[in-house]
Amino acid sequence: MAGRQKIGLVGGTGYAGAELLRLLSAHPQAEIVAVTSRSAAGTPVAETYPQLRGVVDLAFSDMADARLDECDIVFFATPHAAAMHDVPRLLDAGVRIVDLSADFRLRDPMIWAQWYHTEHAAPELIERAVYGLPELGRRTAIAGADLVACPGCYPTAILLGFKPLVEAGVVDLGRLIADAKTGVSGAGMKLATGFLFAEATDSFKAYGVAGHRHLPEIRQFLGELAARDVGLTFVPHLVPMVRGIHATLYATLTGAADLQSLYERAYADEPFVDVLGPGATPETRHVRATNMCRIAVHRPLNGDQAVVLSTIDNLVKGAAGQAVQCFNLMIGAPETSALTATAPVP
Amino acid sequence: MAGRQKIGLVGGTGYAGAELLRLLSAHPQAEIVAVTSRSAAGTPVAETYPQLRGVVDLAFSDMADARLDECDIVFFATPHAAAMHDVPRLLDAGVRIVDLSADFRLRDPMIWAQWYHTEHAAPELIERAVYGLPELGRRTAIAGADLVACPGCYPTAILLGFKPLVEAGVVDLGRLIADAKTGVSGAGMKLATGFLFAEATDSFKAYGVAGHRHLPEIRQFLGELAARDVGLTFVPHLVPMVRGIHATLYATLTGAADLQSLYERAYADEPFVDVLGPGATPETRHVRATNMCRIAVHRPLNGDQAVVLSTIDNLVKGAAGQAVQCFNLMIGAPETSALTATAPVP
Amino acid sequence: MAGRQKIGLVGGTGYAGAELLRLLSAHPQAEIVAVTSRSAAGTPVAETYPQLRGVVDLAFSDMADARLDECDIVFFATPHAAAMHDVPRLLDAGVRIVDLSADFRLRDPMIWAQWYHTEHAAPELIERAVYGLPELGRRTAIAGADLVACPGCYPTAILLGFKPLVEAGVVDLGRLIADAKTGVSGAGMKLATGFLFAEATDSFKAYGVAGHRHLPEIRQFLGELAARDVGLTFVPHLVPMVRGIHATLYATLTGAADLQSLYERAYADEPFVDVLGPGATPETRHVRATNMCRIAVHRPLNGDQAVVLSTIDNLVKGAAGQAVQCFNLMIGAPETSALTATAPVP
Amino acid sequence: MAGRQKIGLVGGTGYAGAELLRLLSAHPQAEIVAVTSRSAAGTPVAETYPQLRGVVDLAFSDMADARLDECDIVFFATPHAAAMHDVPRLLDAGVRIVDLSADFRLRDPMIWAQWYHTEHAAPELIERAVYGLPELGRRTAIAGADLVACPGCYPTAILLGFKPLVEAGVVDLGRLIADAKTGVSGAGMKLATGFLFAEATDSFKAYGVAGHRHLPEIRQFLGELAARDVGLTFVPHLVPMVRGIHATLYATLTGAADLQSLYERAYADEPFVDVLGPGATPETRHVRATNMCRIAVHRPLNGDQAVVLSTIDNLVKGAAGQAVQCFNLMIGAPETSALTATAPVP
Repeated sequence: MAGRQKIGLVGGTGYAGAELLRLLSAHPQAEIVAVTSRSAAGTPVAETYPQLRGVVDLAFSDMADARLDECDIVFFATPHAAAMHDVPRLLDAGVRIVDLSADFRLRDPMIWAQWYHTEHAAPELIERAVYGLPELGRRTAIAGADLVACPGCYPTAILLGFKPLVEAGVVDLGRLIADAKTGVSGAGMKLATGFLFAEATDSFKAYGVAGHRHLPEIRQFLGELAARDVGLTFVPHLVPMVRGIHATLYATLTGAADLQSLYERAYADEPFVDVLGPGATPETRHVRATNMCRIAVHRPLNGDQAVVLSTIDNLVKGAAGQAVQCFNLMIGAPETSALTATAPVP
Repeated sequence: MAGRQKIGLVGGTGYAGAELLRLLSAHPQAEIVAVTSRSAAGTPVAETYPQLRGVVDLAFSDMADARLDECDIVFFATPHAAAMHDVPRLLDAGVRIVDLSADFRLRDPMIWAQWYHTEHAAPELIERAVYGLPELGRRTAIAGADLVACPGCYPTAILLGFKPLVEAGVVDLGRLIADAKTGVSGAGMKLATGFLFAEATDSFKAYGVAGHRHLPEIRQFLGELAARDVGLTFVPHLVPMVRGIHATLYATLTGAADLQSLYERAYADEPFVDVLGPGATPETRHVRATNMCRIAVHRPLNGDQAVVLSTIDNLVKGAAGQAVQCFNLMIGAPETSALTATAPVP
Repeated sequence: MAGRQKIGLVGGTGYAGAELLRLLSAHPQAEIVAVTSRSAAGTPVAETYPQLRGVVDLAFSDMADARLDECDIVFFATPHAAAMHDVPRLLDAGVRIVDLSADFRLRDPMIWAQWYHTEHAAPELIERAVYGLPELGRRTAIAGADLVACPGCYPTAILLGFKPLVEAGVVDLGRLIADAKTGVSGAGMKLATGFLFAEATDSFKAYGVAGHRHLPEIRQFLGELAARDVGLTFVPHLVPMVRGIHATLYATLTGAADLQSLYERAYADEPFVDVLGPGATPETRHVRATNMCRIAVHRPLNGDQAVVLSTIDNLVKGAAGQAVQCFNLMIGAPETSALTATAPVP
Repeated sequence: MAGRQKIGLVGGTGYAGAELLRLLSAHPQAEIVAVTSRSAAGTPVAETYPQLRGVVDLAFSDMADARLDECDIVFFATPHAAAMHDVPRLLDAGVRIVDLSADFRLRDPMIWAQWYHTEHAAPELIERAVYGLPELGRRTAIAGADLVACPGCYPTAILLGFKPLVEAGVVDLGRLIADAKTGVSGAGMKLATGFLFAEATDSFKAYGVAGHRHLPEIRQFLGELAARDVGLTFVPHLVPMVRGIHATLYATLTGAADLQSLYERAYADEPFVDVLGPGATPETRHVRATNMCRIAVHRPLNGDQAVVLSTIDNLVKGAAGQAVQCFNLMIGAPETSALTATAPVP
């Protein structure tokens, strides 16, 4: 196992950044040496995040002053289209990268450009990036990677939910449906009217029906699992809660299958995927602030429809926790290091 | 138009009952003369419901003392399997009934018994009951009915959402999917741990995946609209909000159709169904405390999937408001009487 | 009673503006002819406020185009320091003004300037303004006024709560304490991080402890009631709810008094102040979306401390509803016109 | 330091019990050997608390079967008037007790009987009990105790908030005011209508104004700090949030004092009391799921009123965390063992 790692964090003022600070500050092999923020440079981290008073003593620094090239590993918790500009230089300096943004997830830079409305700045690195979803059979690749592209929150919940069905080849791949629901923190700290408390509380709505950026990401990796193109309808919704994603997945069964044992076998050795017993319905609060994905699989009235319920904390297993899980693999630490806390309930 | 009606309300302590009191106390042709409650007999209504201080001056009475047979119309806002015991006697006394419970919704008493776990006490009245969803082409029947069976909250949102597609015959009727979400008030005032604030807030979950009581009701009326059996997967979810249902409906298109104009035409003359413009996503808060159903129809990426978003307030259009709408039809009042308030937002 | 009034609304995009639209659109004597908004000019009101679809058919207009001088009455629902620039011209044109902002509440323009950090633009009109709290013995003055300065939300709850004690002269006026709590809508639609759902929900905090702008307003009118200076400590807090103010008021009794009957007598004839029975504790939800102020008075353990609990909806009795109440007085309509709705609970 | 301790937990199904399980299951020196529950005996703990799946493998047991006398330390997380019946026997068996209930907090069994409406069953043990608030100068006593009476949640926040002022003798002790606000979890899992989501959300109210059971407890220990009787008005309120207490404390200054440095000095060495800088206002969410008490002290407009803002998580520093803190002292472990997690924010 590698020794204590010097960690840099780019984009430390968002929710994923705060969550990384929470998790890494308790990690025995992580030493956070720089946290950058364009807007907050000079401000003590604990002033922006009072919950870290007495825990993180750094101030935010400007990226130019942060000497990130002296870090062992740098996490990017930036909006899309930021990391791709800085990663090449850092990789050249021998720094390993864990990117929580969307920059290196899609294989095809043209598709990336189409969904993110700007040209990709480092298309030559896309091949080099390893998709950071360990449960997709990527552990060895992640361990050896110097550029890990962490999955989006919806893709994490949906890919883990569909994986056993798709791999087993027992469903109609032409018409998968993912009706997904997220807590408000999924939007980050975006200052938009719709995310104000008085606007978002006590209401429910769909959004992005015409096409959400996570759609091509999910389709790409479902396609890999299926070794063919899949048809997916993906409708995200906004729930008046802070954290949590609940994906309700629908697929038409084309063959016989004991779904319960299919799922239990698929995830028997996974420390962060928990298949609930028959008839159970997972609740997002039970995975709150944890790195767990809890899944239940149903077949209503014994018909030909499989219904999968997949829940994660979007900021942990859907972002910072998954990044730490990848970090653990990268440095040869136990995969669960700093990720064993249970959800504070209620 | 009929004159002022003497109104009795059976089961006045639940949420639908309270909502009926709120709406009917402002109705120019309604005079509430009795509100019954087994548990609260003798208690002033305004003690149980402080919001009605100065508005409703009655006390709850025991049903035996309530002289309901002297009423013109009696509303039942009781749990299932209660109204069916009292309705026959009241009908015999010439009282007209608006039943908000499930007792007279299903055609087949065997199916009713199977889903409600008790035998039906008045199967001979089922035929006589008119399903109280005016937008399903039932206005004349409701106007002349002496027994109206008001729809469940989920069925209201889902039937109104699917109706244009099903009637137009442009979707695969074998595989309709209704992913529905409800606010917590959908459970009434049920004293169960899961509905405590500390348990229900800041979380999201599915429930009743194996089979919810509204499923046979929805299937029965979708079948009527389609004039054949339909295949429906229905998964309800619990949202940490008080009021509101959001149904996300999925159907595979089998023929060409301009979905937007299909919906606009279907509901052009409906005072309580509002079809939003192309690309819109309705929010439950915009129909809160109103009798409106707001619907948007989508076709993501111009594929073969129709996605319909249908929203109502479960306690109003999904219960008490719809009952008042039926009441208006029954007495020849304007259909919108006492139902014109707009949602207090935020 | 005056006939139908032509109404202009300046600043229609905020919460108080939306609430005015909700109330006035249902008022038999109000005809809304113009709604201005700098930022939204040209946008249909019902696009910004979907809850008003089918109810308000106007578009927002720029103030320059709104021909407000042809209105009978213009409501200002603007931030502070806006109305004072436009009111003089409109008054000269014979338009009567109901100002919901802070511009004409304080007697002393120097104190105004000190708390609002800018010079007053129309100090000569301050004398002419009538404070729009009818329950403070101002009905006749409001009825005849051409400039009404509607109270702030906190002052409404606190002044109505303290009034009987202060007028009766039974408490130590040197040390009054108002521990007040508001829902998040009190901040309007302010786009600040702290009002995001993910930041404001599931938490509680005080703010403005060093001095809140409503302090001089409350002190001024308590001083009028007492006919002397009063000492007041005022600490506002933010509650994770949308609407509602709950003021908990503490005063040391200096003389004997039957507090319950003192309060009941004081408000016996008030349509919008409801004194609860002994031992009761009002809840903000019971006045939600209504113009009621619900008050309870306590004397814990029969000691020398009076504790008054005063609740209002900050957007109604604390803003738009009170403005409509003043409007009713100004035009000779029944004081409760368009203000009789009861709270939708739950 | 003592070795691994065998831990019994009586009353494991409530919120304090669940929180003890969360904290102790991560404590290196705690081995939970029995969790009792009358109602849930035989049920796996992880079935009742899915968040503990894979972490706690025990089933609830009936107290009779739990062999608590073989434990080193037994925690009681029971309602009041339960522990007092079982503690004598366990003490006799050499078991040390940490009681989270109210049974051994009050010195005078008559006062206890008056507030808890039943006679005390073990008055002879009251003297032996050590009040488990380490910051009240009780560390040595707690370390050596075999019966620790953990404070109530309100007393913890209020005593820590008032302590520096009272000890310094700079305030009028005859008229202290504690306006306190709690999250809904303060009521435990009580199945009462008022704690249902639909009833408690989006509203705010006071309760227990006539006299709350924590009043005599707070007065007793304020009296100890002051070495005289104190006059205290205590008004608790219910906030629509899950966890957290915010106490707003008012005291009249009778002498000169630099309040900021008074508080900083008083708590300089406390690991779990954090005095914020001048002008700050603590938020309950920043101490959520942690054992911290965050305090700010104000003097509005430099007048003679001190205003102290004191925040804790009622289930941690106000219950289970404080119990673990005492446990750490009792076994000679570092006082912060298992209590170093920071709040997951947002």
